Amino acid sequence: MSSYEKMSREELEIEIEALRREYEEFKSKGLKLDMSRGKPGADQLDLSMAMLTDAALMQNPKSADGTDCRNYGVLDGIAECRELFAELLGVDAQNVIVCGNSSLNLMYDYIAQCMIFGAGSTPWVSQGKIKFACPVPGYDRHFTICESFGIEMINVPMLDDGPDMDILEELVRDSSVKGMFCVPKYSNPEGKTFSDETVRRIAALKPAANDFRVIWDNAYCVHDIYETGDKLLNIFEVAKQHGNEDMFIEVASTSKISFPGAGVSAIVASDNNIREIKRRMSAQIIGYDKLNMLRHARFFKNKQGVEEQMKKHAAILKPKFEAVLSAFDKELSSLGIAHWIKPNGGYFISLEVMDGCAKRVVELCKQAGVVLTPAGATYPYGKDPKDSNIRIAPTFPPVDELKTAVSLLCLCVKIACAEKILNY
Amino acid sequence: MSSYEKMSREELEIEIEALRREYEEFKSKGLKLDMSRGKPGADQLDLSMAMLTDAALMQNPKSADGTDCRNYGVLDGIAECRELFAELLGVDAQNVIVCGNSSLNLMYDYIAQCMIFGAGSTPWVSQGKIKFACPVPGYDRHFTICESFGIEMINVPMLDDGPDMDILEELVRDSSVKGMFCVPKYSNPEGKTFSDETVRRIAALKPAANDFRVIWDNAYCVHDIYETGDKLLNIFEVAKQHGNEDMFIEVASTSKISFPGAGVSAIVASDNNIREIKRRMSAQIIGYDKLNMLRHARFFKNKQGVEEQMKKHAAILKPKFEAVLSAFDKELSSLGIAHWIKPNGGYFISLEVMDGCAKRVVELCKQAGVVLTPAGATYPYGKDPKDSNIRIAPTFPPVDELKTAVSLLCLCVKIACAEKILNY
Repeated sequence: MSSYEKMSREELEIEIEALRREYEEFKSKGLKLDMSRGKPGADQLDLSMAMLTDAALMQNPKSADGTDCRNYGVLDGIAECRELFAELLGVDAQNVIVCGNSSLNLMYDYIAQCMIFGAGSTPWVSQGKIKFACPVPGYDRHFTICESFGIEMINVPMLDDGPDMDILEELVRDSSVKGMFCVPKYSNPEGKTFSDETVRRIAALKPAANDFRVIWDNAYCVHDIYETGDKLLNIFEVAKQHGNEDMFIEVASTSKISFPGAGVSAIVASDNNIREIKRRMSAQIIGYDKLNMLRHARFFKNKQGVEEQMKKHAAILKPKFEAVLSAFDKELSSLGIAHWIKPNGGYFISLEVMDGCAKRVVELCKQAGVVLTPAGATYPYGKDPKDSNIRIAPTFPPVDELKTAVSLLCLCVKIACAEKILNY
Repeated sequence: MSSYEKMSREELEIEIEALRREYEEFKSKGLKLDMSRGKPGADQLDLSMAMLTDAALMQNPKSADGTDCRNYGVLDGIAECRELFAELLGVDAQNVIVCGNSSLNLMYDYIAQCMIFGAGSTPWVSQGKIKFACPVPGYDRHFTICESFGIEMINVPMLDDGPDMDILEELVRDSSVKGMFCVPKYSNPEGKTFSDETVRRIAALKPAANDFRVIWDNAYCVHDIYETGDKLLNIFEVAKQHGNEDMFIEVASTSKISFPGAGVSAIVASDNNIREIKRRMSAQIIGYDKLNMLRHARFFKNKQGVEEQMKKHAAILKPKFEAVLSAFDKELSSLGIAHWIKPNGGYFISLEVMDGCAKRVVELCKQAGVVLTPAGATYPYGKDPKDSNIRIAPTFPPVDELKTAVSLLCLCVKIACAEKILNY
């Protein structure tokens, strides 16, 4: 098949007729498939079932230091769980607070508290209009947090190795720019990992705002799909060289290691920030669920235990990612209407279609029973300026359903792009 | 023994000498006892151990409607757990959101969000100085929330049947008074339950502030110690009669039903408020720990299951409360230096000693190895204007330790009050 752009109008009209017949066949199947959110599949969740059903695991409800995990207390989480996160993230346990089931909640609360109390500064609410730099495409829930607090979002394009640092460095010269959310490893949705140089430039930023904060959402820190996973520099090690360690707030969780609805999360920060976060937290909560921390610490034991678990996840995920990528290769690669990146980990594949076609593709898929992340969701305010990015979440459906869904998706990409070229 | 006030100076000096010898004996024992916080004892926590060790309980991780509780989603909590709280609190399940392990966290977040977004109003942060009415003595963590947000606290004395409503009704005529925290059943620390008339007057309040909120912290809703527990009117039923249902935010939790560190909490509110809370929550979190909800729903099954559990708690707690109360009766009742209320439930006994003596009592106890809640903690800013209230938390120590601790406490009350009368 040759590129759509090179086909004659007549050839393309014949092509689109054939595509539409194929589409009608799909529609008649009454599909009901969901590729919208980065949810693990049931088989992945089964990997941690012993955490729920091993009667011996929680027989002794005391942590290693003798704390009864059933009772109140221990604001920063039990030692063995803090150490597990410290080992995974390459930081000191004293810089880790282990919390509830949601790192999103930690990020939201951190921003909420910056709004009310500031970040070693006057409260953000009293500083007039404030802004965040937003690497795009990015994670919709980061944007939702900003939007809910009325923080203006400014797009910073993602390059192959992370956000466009020239633009970011320019942007932070504006003192109303107060921060940035980012997913530095296996970014959502593109699966890109920030290069060493990019991490170094972020670590060395000298923002005009002295209360600038980077929320380092390390959601996919150990989430390799291939043996040779990407390597991300340790942000705190690099930031320290520039005296910038207070500028970074890292979060992570076991949501995609154990259970998305019932994992444990952690917040990692400098000594100064941990002290301040704990001070604020002490008014907010007596302590997070220590039994769940104990369950996790005992089930995984240490970094190696987590890595073994992640290999099992990878074995389940690899065929799913490859089903999507091989369909793209087969169906789309020669047509000049779409491109994509093959990620080494994470939960998403980002598909870039011809400008102005993403919404139409998502709509066509929806009408035929396949739900994708809404077009635009990967941009602030739901506005993809080129209407070209589609986030594919291949993890939840079983492989056979996924193959069907991706066939439909490829078909819809072809239809939408052919329509566009034909000016329908 | 006659009242200290009626004794001659000489008699009292002889008495205090004897007391001090007794105190030195206590000191030499090297006690290390804690009656400072309302923590359940280990035997109470054992009542729920099957929740952790019954391998069958979580074999099927799906809720009744088929939701896989291991995965993401269900912002308002699984249906069976919402229904459990609805049954316990006499409300519709649609007015309940089941959340994480901490109702304190829910209250903090609610106030934080009022600060930033208002309560159907302009944000509280932009309304200048705002104030809360605080029934005193009260729960220190409520005061800490207010203090952390810079909300000015105004004392409202507790009468036998709840806050002094004449004072409260007068106070809410000030539009800068934005709300009130209260524990309407088995209040912390006095164990009082608001009378029907008091609940009706609270429900009928017409505050000048249209964004006035009462945080109805129903922490001890099912926590009777005696068979004939106190009865509290359903605040939403009464408030509805006055069109005031938006004024109330109720919270509750299983912290003192199952596990303090690992229970489930719930927020209950009017249709309008639930809609708004869910809207805000949808930016904050994808969903709370549904596996823990499922664990609780299956373990307790229904209201009756909870009530049976509470009878077992009561059987453990009753001897502890009675150990304290009988020691008070025996040691203090005839001396005219202290008084107390016998509560029918809850977690505390409130001891009122002679004005100006509470701090000294707590200090004397501490020096002899018994930790009490700091004097003043039951008042805003830690300032008990009469320095007379001491909160006793009898639940955590085993009965024999508790008896020792209370003997010491009575001794310290006598010493401190005798010193006061003698003007030492």
